Amino acid sequence: MKKLIEKVLTSEIIFPGRFLKIWRDEVELPNGFRSFREYVKHPGAAMVIPETNDGKYILIYQYRHAVGQVFLEFPAGKTDPGETTHQTAARELQEEVGWSPGNLEFLTHIHPVIGYSNEKIDLFYASNLKKAPINKDPDEVLEIVELSLDELQTKLWNHEITDVKTQIGIFWLLKKMKKI
Amino acid sequence: MKKLIEKVLTSEIIFPGRFLKIWRDEVELPNGFRSFREYVKHPGAAMVIPETNDGKYILIYQYRHAVGQVFLEFPAGKTDPGETTHQTAARELQEEVGWSPGNLEFLTHIHPVIGYSNEKIDLFYASNLKKAPINKDPDEVLEIVELSLDELQTKLWNHEITDVKTQIGIFWLLKKMKKI
Repeated sequence: MKKLIEKVLTSEIIFPGRFLKIWRDEVELPNGFRSFREYVKHPGAAMVIPETNDGKYILIYQYRHAVGQVFLEFPAGKTDPGETTHQTAARELQEEVGWSPGNLEFLTHIHPVIGYSNEKIDLFYASNLKKAPINKDPDEVLEIVELSLDELQTKLWNHEITDVKTQIGIFWLLKKMKKI
Repeated sequence: MKKLIEKVLTSEIIFPGRFLKIWRDEVELPNGFRSFREYVKHPGAAMVIPETNDGKYILIYQYRHAVGQVFLEFPAGKTDPGETTHQTAARELQEEVGWSPGNLEFLTHIHPVIGYSNEKIDLFYASNLKKAPINKDPDEVLEIVELSLDELQTKLWNHEITDVKTQIGIFWLLKKMKKI
């Protein structure tokens, strides 16, 4: 696949937003053609599938302003500087829904925006949960729900779970539970 | 879920890039807290799962500069002004891999970047393919491959298909083929 790789000619930050940093690189393609690529540099993120001690799954409803819609999602968040994604997953689980994981397993990693962001999300499964204090960011308003695996599957096939990380999390959970 | 919705106070374009347009809105949360949301406005996109007449699936290997890696993907692209996603899917199928669909079915839609983009991708399944001229953009260099559903599943569970639209496409294809 080496023959597909582009060569970077120049690379600069063209927009240093409060939340989004945009870079523009000039690249030379394997066919000699030159083009520009604009993209977001992202610190990476972690998502966690928390299984309660009675076999349900904890998700949140959250309004996402970029899309203008409420989404059903597993807890997730950006990695802080110096943090592993394992630590991010445990931290978000506590901050957003108030649980500490006795067991935290890596499932897979995904790239949600390969056209214009280097974002990578590591997906984890958490069990043996213990209560811990919730500590949300003040700009996060969310509603916590517990759903069974059957309920999650029904919502997925009914097109009610369109957030990619959450949908992929359910498939990997089905695989882990030997349902697919 | 109405109680989760944020109220828009101001909305402005803060970065008009060549490819990426960034908006910043000031919002008031249901708890009265005010915050800023920065996000990409995206025209929407379509992805197509092309099934060959001998039951294989057509994918492409493409270098994605934002991530710095070659990805295995189903053909996809942004919607042109005035186009339906059904038309986008048929156009990308021809432009990128050289086939015209006798049958094109909508499967589902996904939101890949709910934190910072309004992007929505409609996923389609195409069959009864007829040869048509390839017409790639000059800044697209790609390699076309044909894989069986078993090969796709193996690569997926081996963490080799991390592009979210392609991974989700395989799950919906498995569902369509009554394998899950």
